[in-house]
Amino acid sequence: MSSSFGTLLKTTTFGESHGRAVGAVLDGLPAGLALDEADIQAQLDRRRPGQSVLTTERGETDQVRLLSGVENGRTLGTPIAMRVENRDQRPADYGEMDTVPRPSHADYTYRVKYGIAARSGGGRASARETIGRVAAGAVADKWLLETFGIEIVAWVDAVGDITAPVPEIGTLSRRRVDAHPVRCPDDATAGAMSDLITAVRTARDSVGGIVACVCRNVPAGLGEPIFDKFEALLAHAMLSIPATKGFEVGAGFNAARMRGSAHNDPFIFRNGVLETTTNHSGGIQGGISNGAPVVFRVAFKPPATIGLPQQTVDYRGRPVTLEARGRHDPCVVPRAVPIVEAMAALVIGDLLLRQHGRRR
Amino acid sequence: MSSSFGTLLKTTTFGESHGRAVGAVLDGLPAGLALDEADIQAQLDRRRPGQSVLTTERGETDQVRLLSGVENGRTLGTPIAMRVENRDQRPADYGEMDTVPRPSHADYTYRVKYGIAARSGGGRASARETIGRVAAGAVADKWLLETFGIEIVAWVDAVGDITAPVPEIGTLSRRRVDAHPVRCPDDATAGAMSDLITAVRTARDSVGGIVACVCRNVPAGLGEPIFDKFEALLAHAMLSIPATKGFEVGAGFNAARMRGSAHNDPFIFRNGVLETTTNHSGGIQGGISNGAPVVFRVAFKPPATIGLPQQTVDYRGRPVTLEARGRHDPCVVPRAVPIVEAMAALVIGDLLLRQHGRRR
Amino acid sequence: MSSSFGTLLKTTTFGESHGRAVGAVLDGLPAGLALDEADIQAQLDRRRPGQSVLTTERGETDQVRLLSGVENGRTLGTPIAMRVENRDQRPADYGEMDTVPRPSHADYTYRVKYGIAARSGGGRASARETIGRVAAGAVADKWLLETFGIEIVAWVDAVGDITAPVPEIGTLSRRRVDAHPVRCPDDATAGAMSDLITAVRTARDSVGGIVACVCRNVPAGLGEPIFDKFEALLAHAMLSIPATKGFEVGAGFNAARMRGSAHNDPFIFRNGVLETTTNHSGGIQGGISNGAPVVFRVAFKPPATIGLPQQTVDYRGRPVTLEARGRHDPCVVPRAVPIVEAMAALVIGDLLLRQHGRRR
Amino acid sequence: MSSSFGTLLKTTTFGESHGRAVGAVLDGLPAGLALDEADIQAQLDRRRPGQSVLTTERGETDQVRLLSGVENGRTLGTPIAMRVENRDQRPADYGEMDTVPRPSHADYTYRVKYGIAARSGGGRASARETIGRVAAGAVADKWLLETFGIEIVAWVDAVGDITAPVPEIGTLSRRRVDAHPVRCPDDATAGAMSDLITAVRTARDSVGGIVACVCRNVPAGLGEPIFDKFEALLAHAMLSIPATKGFEVGAGFNAARMRGSAHNDPFIFRNGVLETTTNHSGGIQGGISNGAPVVFRVAFKPPATIGLPQQTVDYRGRPVTLEARGRHDPCVVPRAVPIVEAMAALVIGDLLLRQHGRRR
Repeated sequence: MSSSFGTLLKTTTFGESHGRAVGAVLDGLPAGLALDEADIQAQLDRRRPGQSVLTTERGETDQVRLLSGVENGRTLGTPIAMRVENRDQRPADYGEMDTVPRPSHADYTYRVKYGIAARSGGGRASARETIGRVAAGAVADKWLLETFGIEIVAWVDAVGDITAPVPEIGTLSRRRVDAHPVRCPDDATAGAMSDLITAVRTARDSVGGIVACVCRNVPAGLGEPIFDKFEALLAHAMLSIPATKGFEVGAGFNAARMRGSAHNDPFIFRNGVLETTTNHSGGIQGGISNGAPVVFRVAFKPPATIGLPQQTVDYRGRPVTLEARGRHDPCVVPRAVPIVEAMAALVIGDLLLRQHGRRR
Repeated sequence: MSSSFGTLLKTTTFGESHGRAVGAVLDGLPAGLALDEADIQAQLDRRRPGQSVLTTERGETDQVRLLSGVENGRTLGTPIAMRVENRDQRPADYGEMDTVPRPSHADYTYRVKYGIAARSGGGRASARETIGRVAAGAVADKWLLETFGIEIVAWVDAVGDITAPVPEIGTLSRRRVDAHPVRCPDDATAGAMSDLITAVRTARDSVGGIVACVCRNVPAGLGEPIFDKFEALLAHAMLSIPATKGFEVGAGFNAARMRGSAHNDPFIFRNGVLETTTNHSGGIQGGISNGAPVVFRVAFKPPATIGLPQQTVDYRGRPVTLEARGRHDPCVVPRAVPIVEAMAALVIGDLLLRQHGRRR
Repeated sequence: MSSSFGTLLKTTTFGESHGRAVGAVLDGLPAGLALDEADIQAQLDRRRPGQSVLTTERGETDQVRLLSGVENGRTLGTPIAMRVENRDQRPADYGEMDTVPRPSHADYTYRVKYGIAARSGGGRASARETIGRVAAGAVADKWLLETFGIEIVAWVDAVGDITAPVPEIGTLSRRRVDAHPVRCPDDATAGAMSDLITAVRTARDSVGGIVACVCRNVPAGLGEPIFDKFEALLAHAMLSIPATKGFEVGAGFNAARMRGSAHNDPFIFRNGVLETTTNHSGGIQGGISNGAPVVFRVAFKPPATIGLPQQTVDYRGRPVTLEARGRHDPCVVPRAVPIVEAMAALVIGDLLLRQHGRRR
Repeated sequence: MSSSFGTLLKTTTFGESHGRAVGAVLDGLPAGLALDEADIQAQLDRRRPGQSVLTTERGETDQVRLLSGVENGRTLGTPIAMRVENRDQRPADYGEMDTVPRPSHADYTYRVKYGIAARSGGGRASARETIGRVAAGAVADKWLLETFGIEIVAWVDAVGDITAPVPEIGTLSRRRVDAHPVRCPDDATAGAMSDLITAVRTARDSVGGIVACVCRNVPAGLGEPIFDKFEALLAHAMLSIPATKGFEVGAGFNAARMRGSAHNDPFIFRNGVLETTTNHSGGIQGGISNGAPVVFRVAFKPPATIGLPQQTVDYRGRPVTLEARGRHDPCVVPRAVPIVEAMAALVIGDLLLRQHGRRR
């Protein structure tokens, strides 16, 4: 296990999906930030299952509670512990899962790794694990916004083979993103995505997608070469999110197809500082932010749990046909938006503290 | 600066391109591995500039010297320090670079970050920095191969818009990769890539590319959820390599377009263990290796240094036209192959030690 | 803040004395350990204030609750979160403390460090912070005992100028230590210590003391030179406990007065392995355990809170006379015994995992 | 192995006593410090064997060479690699040491830990390992002094049972300490210590001692509770030095004998800030510096290598009599003075960067 992330701003998450609670401890945040549970709840509500008209199942779940680190509405500089109780604290009754590893789930690998027969690490590989990240990230996000004006906005860039046009990243807001439940800021595309998700659900299948993210007003100078370059920490953070398969920054994989004369970002002088006329670099050069918006994309695979029958084998190697029962998310990217924002905030916050250490 | 990487197997690199030496300290490698300088030199020679018929400029440069950690041809379990002297130890005479930040280089960001006017961190952002990685990785690579049978082979998957067919990853060898200087194992594609690189060079431009990598015989159980998932550490490692813009594992960004019914990897029983019939997961499920080959791809941008004139501004904001003189690599991916292998070896070695810690 | 400790076995504590809860997250413990709350409660009860006949104030406080990491009575290998609610969740009403930094408390330094006017980091410098350590340590302790037979026993070695004779460290048990509330296993000395504590309390003063500790059956080979030597991590762990002023291992400060001919521990051959005839080394040579009992001592200062009037100044520099009201522990060492054991268990557990990583 | 120390200011040391070189990489030091090899050499010369009239054996050994991180006499903010070549690069010919573990040396424990028969980790447990620490510490020391006015001065406080009177710590200088080769600033005591060392040498024995250290002008606010308290990191650093057995800060073990009314440090108002009238806290309260001088002491055992015959056993358990040949240091504390200073500088530098990260 390695349940901690960050050097100076450190997040530790805990909790299984069917245990008592999930949560996080955020350590290293400077004192003095105004903070209450509503600040955190807002992002948790965006992550929560059953939030959209498409999936209106659940009520007022996932209420966060601050256990420490805040007094009289201000952070103390001490660890901020946050807890969300699980409503579904079932005793462990795995049924079929006890004997059959679900394809492309973590059942098999957790069993090999830890040597015990628990449900995917007892549910640690569940999407509920991300609650802790979102809670911690929401705190970091508020601190970055209020203290440094850093704005982080993620959105759904693709669902299956439907890709959105590039939005106006200079002004894109979370409110705009949330205008459609699928969290794609282009209305026409959002509608098509929504239709696709509905069709996939009807077919008892699932579909992947891409979340894009912009971080505005990141000061130049953040990133710690050689190994903790800005993009390296972002990639680490994003690939630690469940179901992610890829990360790219700036021009990303397209850069591999480009010529240097087209990819290079020339400098210009504007408002008293150097800026670049293009941003193929995605706001990062040599592993260090250059003041331009940091832009990146994260690929998510289709959820592994599907209703369609799957031919596989049980732990003893005997053939079985699996059919998932119940309702499952056919596409994770709308709910992944606040998770991506959270991890971005944790990376930027950590790099900011590390860079400020150099000041005399 | 963050010049160290790894938790139990830790690499620290040092050195600027125009200083006395570059190198690395590899700490945490178990004792008893047979090791001499030739083992390391082999990979350094694959990284070295001017190695191919395309660029026959330099001679027997970049000779590694072991400073510590080995006695009587065996590792001691103590830190292995390796040093490569720089032949080109010029006194700092930056000329134009002193006044003009090169577009998409690290000149500007290093200056903002460190507050000094040195050439890209005095040359720390130079490709020579990767010598230390390759040296450390070569040691880890030999240890993984000889002790655990783990085989790591990277190759050039794309140059510009030329993409190679998927090779036979079960048998692909470094020897086969090196059969063509461009390091693409498909002969026809390699020829086309070589032509493209030559054309780009003639045009005084540069071009990007993609390196792919397979790691065979990685035991199931490696990877440390939640934050140090196998793919998360790989992504961190790869995005810390200069000029990288993207990382994907298994089906990668294509997974975003797939249905779950197509993407899921069903289990079968073979040779007494569970295997998967497909490998869209890229050998990793839930952040933990499942015994299948670990497969990933890394996107590299076109080198920033080009001979074509570029319109930009100097540090004071005055317009200038930059034209790089001298010979520069028009495409980095052939030389990036051993760098990708090195970083993969460092990740796998670290995860292996961490997993073995659980054994009683 | 740095609220995490350990490399592979990592403890993160949280909580202020007057907030909602205190607790810890223990990450990295292998799966399969039988664990329930009673296992942890036992050590918490030994730490609890008001436990002895000397100080019978409080009831059944400090009940631990497992939030995660355990299923069906077994650890999952995932982070174990533990929480103890605070009964005394007063709104912040500091009164005098708001204007006067208590001498030799953390009031002043926390205010300088964090830039806010909170009660000693909002109570993070309070002895209640050690609840998280004791909870995490109790889990590690049980794992070390049941899996490896490692026994950790601490005792009160000195109170003020009363020092106990050296006990039989080969057989000393926690039960024997707890036979007297002062936790000194020598009955006569325990009585004298108890009298001294009572006298000091009556005088509205406080007194320091020393806790000693033996760790038996620690396997040879633990400790990570150069910087994470066994004794270095122990020293780090012990000096992180509130009110500690010194640490020594084996002959300790006495070794400074000895000749090598007297201090050296000669080897003998016993039961098929090398042992030493003496143990001035305290079970550690070259930073690595040698199989002999690990023995060390920790010095605690007298508690800073005393009823006697103290001449000092307020934050503005105006002279004031401070007199602490209420009941305060006149001597911390009896309650520090389980804290020292907890930190020792966390160090040994971490080193054990790190050493086992070397196994093939 | 854990050959790295520090969070933001990170030192990695390498090298065995009989290999090619020893050295260190110091990472994280801010750019812009004036630095050349002479700055480092000064402290290495104080650590060098054979430097005093008592032991005039060797010449101009241990010359440091800067390999990276400095350009035009200024640090670049990049890793500073430093190397000292070993003159005595003997091929491994252990003779008796190959079969007999020296009492209280690391021979036995290294063999158990690493599973190989090398001389104490091939000489990694040798005192030469400290060269890397002293080199890295000298750089940090210069930075702390020139940028923040922080002065670190260590001295020999005791040799055997001879203890020096407390010096005037407000003005004590390295020059004053070096006035006598034994490095005790009290002339009469220094003479007696010198006589004792000579007598012990004549008797073919060895003797322990204590090094004390003061750090002046340390700003209030350094130290990272809970686990990286100032004194905890100091204790970690000091107990990682070879041959150390104890650490105490402020009143130290004496505090255990004191009453709170005597030990507490009352505040007064002086020069516009709060200061304390006494300094039993040793400049640290609640794990955070309070602006008073940081004062601590480190106990060193007598060197294990003595000429007197020792009854012990070989690795197979057969009795042998060991008599060390050649000249050996009968007491390490005079040479340990710069080592203690180096480790103190590395701790303070790291804490300073971590605290400055909090600044906006």
